[in-house]
Amino acid sequence: MSIRGAPVEELIRRAIAGDRRSTGRLLSLVEAGGTEAERVTELTPSPTGGAHIVGITGPPGSGKSTLVARLIGVASGAAPRPAVLAVDPSSPLTGGAILGDRVRMTGVDSGAFIRSMATRGHIGGLALAIPGAVRVLEAAGFDPVMIETVGVGQVEVDITAAADTTVVVVTPGMGDAVQASKAGLLEVADVFVVNKADRPGATGTRRDLELMLELSHVTGHEDADYRPPILMTNSLDGQGVVEVCEAIIDHRTYLESSGKLAERRHRRARFEVANRLQGRFDRSLADLLDSDPVRILLDQVAAGTVSPAAAARRLAQHLVPSEARAAGPQFS
Amino acid sequence: MSIRGAPVEELIRRAIAGDRRSTGRLLSLVEAGGTEAERVTELTPSPTGGAHIVGITGPPGSGKSTLVARLIGVASGAAPRPAVLAVDPSSPLTGGAILGDRVRMTGVDSGAFIRSMATRGHIGGLALAIPGAVRVLEAAGFDPVMIETVGVGQVEVDITAAADTTVVVVTPGMGDAVQASKAGLLEVADVFVVNKADRPGATGTRRDLELMLELSHVTGHEDADYRPPILMTNSLDGQGVVEVCEAIIDHRTYLESSGKLAERRHRRARFEVANRLQGRFDRSLADLLDSDPVRILLDQVAAGTVSPAAAARRLAQHLVPSEARAAGPQFS
Repeated sequence: MSIRGAPVEELIRRAIAGDRRSTGRLLSLVEAGGTEAERVTELTPSPTGGAHIVGITGPPGSGKSTLVARLIGVASGAAPRPAVLAVDPSSPLTGGAILGDRVRMTGVDSGAFIRSMATRGHIGGLALAIPGAVRVLEAAGFDPVMIETVGVGQVEVDITAAADTTVVVVTPGMGDAVQASKAGLLEVADVFVVNKADRPGATGTRRDLELMLELSHVTGHEDADYRPPILMTNSLDGQGVVEVCEAIIDHRTYLESSGKLAERRHRRARFEVANRLQGRFDRSLADLLDSDPVRILLDQVAAGTVSPAAAARRLAQHLVPSEARAAGPQFS
Repeated sequence: MSIRGAPVEELIRRAIAGDRRSTGRLLSLVEAGGTEAERVTELTPSPTGGAHIVGITGPPGSGKSTLVARLIGVASGAAPRPAVLAVDPSSPLTGGAILGDRVRMTGVDSGAFIRSMATRGHIGGLALAIPGAVRVLEAAGFDPVMIETVGVGQVEVDITAAADTTVVVVTPGMGDAVQASKAGLLEVADVFVVNKADRPGATGTRRDLELMLELSHVTGHEDADYRPPILMTNSLDGQGVVEVCEAIIDHRTYLESSGKLAERRHRRARFEVANRLQGRFDRSLADLLDSDPVRILLDQVAAGTVSPAAAARRLAQHLVPSEARAAGPQFS
């Protein structure tokens, strides 16, 4: 039976047995979305204590790809093998280029599984596709699973919030530290990396991060027992990369010993379920707003004869049943 | 009666009569959100054919603030007077600084109303506050109302999509044009400005934009009859600013003569109503996911005994009633 025509159950069986082409095919199904993607996710439940999910994010040009390639190099010595999902939320065009570069950098025999994912112009789709892809890679036995995102924005924060350990990469100068702080990455970072640390301003950037961490701890960071380390690297020559790898493993150890791993897994489950509900809401909202009677209502809002608040109140009952909630839902 | 204690109706009456402090107070109420913000929006319906809403966006450092100050200078000669909402979605810290710079640049006697707005750490809040603030400024007789956003991201695209005319500002080099394209700003731009046009690479940036416009027209831009002009400016010495002002007015004229202004106003109404419904959904979803029975369900998802898809299906009926939609809602 060919890979393309194989049923999902068969692909999962083969992927678990170590067939990389079946893993790739499952990831394509997840990326494409729809009912087959649902089926893949349904059949690959995330096992407790599964792979270590590592999010790696930071501004464009901070050298994340090179750092990730270096981390693969460090991690490839050990079993099980690492996997990388390189996510570009903004463009379907660069995906191939990222992948090409990566394969060139790491070599084909590292044992790592590297895959780029793009949104195909649909940001909401990515929020569903990534947890699904992580499940596939976990089921296929890859560990750690690194999710690398390009850019700094809400999408990146959301994606990295779903990881066990989040690494935020910045570079000296350029206001990267401030930009990362503005984007809310400070709150989600478990490990900071100042990459290209041979450049002028590296010490200043480190100081900026320390100051911002200090402030965020004062104003109530979520976790008072853990303080994210700030590491200096030069991913081009590999300096400091082993220390980053150790810091990532240390954070996982901390999560396990403190009982916070369960919290993170709960948060990831919540994130994944919430995204599915958001998807349903988006479709339902679009259907509603495109319907003829609602178009007339929106024209009245545009003309100023109905206020947006009144229109929203009138439409809300068709989307969010507050009565059902007030009645107290039962789920067990 | 003091401004602070005055009821919303009284503040609106005074704002319409030209009292700037009352306008400022109304904007503060809108920014704070909650029931008083709702009341302000309820009482300031957007009149058809009201102020020209101009969105101005682009990457940080592209000189938007200086350009906006120059545009105020050009527009201040005419009645009615312009207003500016300077929006920084990422940080509550920089709002004051932007405002301070602006007041210094434009002088206090230009007649323009300038106000900075920040999210106070709540991005969804901004999507509600901005249309509300625009309504207040329209009601108070300001025209045009310019909305300036800092940064390039989904928030900026959403905000500018709510304007009649969207100006995208980029600078030579730095990959600004490509970044704007990735962020989806190309699709919403009605006027392009290459600012700091005295810098090296200005012609190349213009060419990049022309090429990307060409491609987007080929692949199906929303509007085949209108091609966004690309203007070169130097906002520091004011070169090219009059032409930008003319291009903005020309676009408005085009919208009116082509009947597309009504479409844009419909889109703005849709955006505003959709944001309100999204806000309700967010609150309802958070309540649901924080409830004890759902926490247990999410733990089962985290443990892999229930799939996220199954959990979402079970919860969906408490959020999105597909039955109510199937029954065919009546809204008139």
